[in-house]
Amino acid sequence: MQFNDPDILATAHLMADAARAAILPYFRGSELATENKLNEGFDPVTAADRAAELAMRDVLAQRRPDDGILGEEFGTSEGTSGLHWVLDPIDGTRGFMSGTPTWGVLIALSDETGPKFGMIDQPYIGERFWGSTDQAQMQGPLGARPLAVRGITDLSDAVLFTTFPEVGTEAERAGFEAVMRQVKLTRYGMDCYAYALLAAGQIDLVIEAGLQPYDIQAPIAVIEAAGGIVTDWQGGPAHNGGRVVAAATTELHAAALAHLREVAKD
Amino acid sequence: MQFNDPDILATAHLMADAARAAILPYFRGSELATENKLNEGFDPVTAADRAAELAMRDVLAQRRPDDGILGEEFGTSEGTSGLHWVLDPIDGTRGFMSGTPTWGVLIALSDETGPKFGMIDQPYIGERFWGSTDQAQMQGPLGARPLAVRGITDLSDAVLFTTFPEVGTEAERAGFEAVMRQVKLTRYGMDCYAYALLAAGQIDLVIEAGLQPYDIQAPIAVIEAAGGIVTDWQGGPAHNGGRVVAAATTELHAAALAHLREVAKD
Repeated sequence: MQFNDPDILATAHLMADAARAAILPYFRGSELATENKLNEGFDPVTAADRAAELAMRDVLAQRRPDDGILGEEFGTSEGTSGLHWVLDPIDGTRGFMSGTPTWGVLIALSDETGPKFGMIDQPYIGERFWGSTDQAQMQGPLGARPLAVRGITDLSDAVLFTTFPEVGTEAERAGFEAVMRQVKLTRYGMDCYAYALLAAGQIDLVIEAGLQPYDIQAPIAVIEAAGGIVTDWQGGPAHNGGRVVAAATTELHAAALAHLREVAKD
Repeated sequence: MQFNDPDILATAHLMADAARAAILPYFRGSELATENKLNEGFDPVTAADRAAELAMRDVLAQRRPDDGILGEEFGTSEGTSGLHWVLDPIDGTRGFMSGTPTWGVLIALSDETGPKFGMIDQPYIGERFWGSTDQAQMQGPLGARPLAVRGITDLSDAVLFTTFPEVGTEAERAGFEAVMRQVKLTRYGMDCYAYALLAAGQIDLVIEAGLQPYDIQAPIAVIEAAGGIVTDWQGGPAHNGGRVVAAATTELHAAALAHLREVAKD
């Protein structure tokens, strides 16, 4: 399977462009229509979310009708190619609802072994990060740049991100905090943008829990393309979601896992 | 004193433009030169910080030599006009060092009673928020828009921001958490950008502690221009820094103060 097929990248750019156009009229606007997808908890779903996923599915229907689709909003569509696109039209809906520029459109292309192409797009900033087996790039306000993780190997030099300090369960929070106590700096609130910053060599670790497959497949492909590592808290594949640790280097990954494995046994 | 003098706004735009040009070559770049300003704690100072303050002081030397200046990096310059500019060239240096787009350039113009004009600029996004006695505006990727707080009055409907969950001392954290338990959503990590979001009607409360005067004077002017309220945790003036609560409405402000006043007595 050729994940460096130029048609894949061209299709992903068209999907991200379509998602931007669908979402931005709703961002910080008064048109925002929200509803609660779950009766318990806080999981806002917006008209923007649905419009963006439909716009991306339209691109796929025209250009790649044989691929399957797993989307956050409209579920699974079977394909015949052995490949499936994994779509999260707005990752970070709470950040979106708060007006922050740290949510993103997530697009991955996966086979049965996991994601092999990924794209993270931030429409408001106009910033896009993507990676596959033979490329790792970004384009944004300062132009185009290659993506590459940086070479930090000691936790004491590392910058760690997660989206909110509760992380997940009490045990998951304790695991995160065991790593947090060893790092140079911990920051919060970036949603999928933190994975993009890791791929761009700006930060060193992202640790989260409770993720869905569509939350993490695009970040996995982008970070692996940039030279980093993403696994679950036991060191296994992370593309089904759950507890995730992303690291710039094998050394940092091993050091973080040493703290997280105990939780992973629960 | 005419704070709606067009020369003030024009000068501030030139200062923010000069700061953008000085800072962006260092953002996410390899040229970043850091040093520790304090022996204890983590307070990175960058070459960008110094270059930006010097660039802003050059604008003032040419256009408004009679005004005083209080800058984060180069201290106080006395003036004769009764007005002084308060400058924080990079508010959110930890965010800057982590590559996030949530730091900002802060510019205020104050008299002896406090700030009357303020500007918050985010150079990477290309987004600028400003306000004074007769105006409250922003310009950014989606164009120009007026700034106005939204009308949330109950804590249970409010979105609260602070930069990091520790907030400050144990007592300060407890005060913050007493408010946090009442609100709809709490988010972290935005530095000065949270104040801009409040002025833009996207969020409802920002609570912080341990601020310097140059951290808060520009946000005070922008938020007051947009119809909001900024005080210390006792309800008094906040322009000298310390513990700050910013609220969209008088009702939210009073409800937050009810939780914060106990700490303020310490």
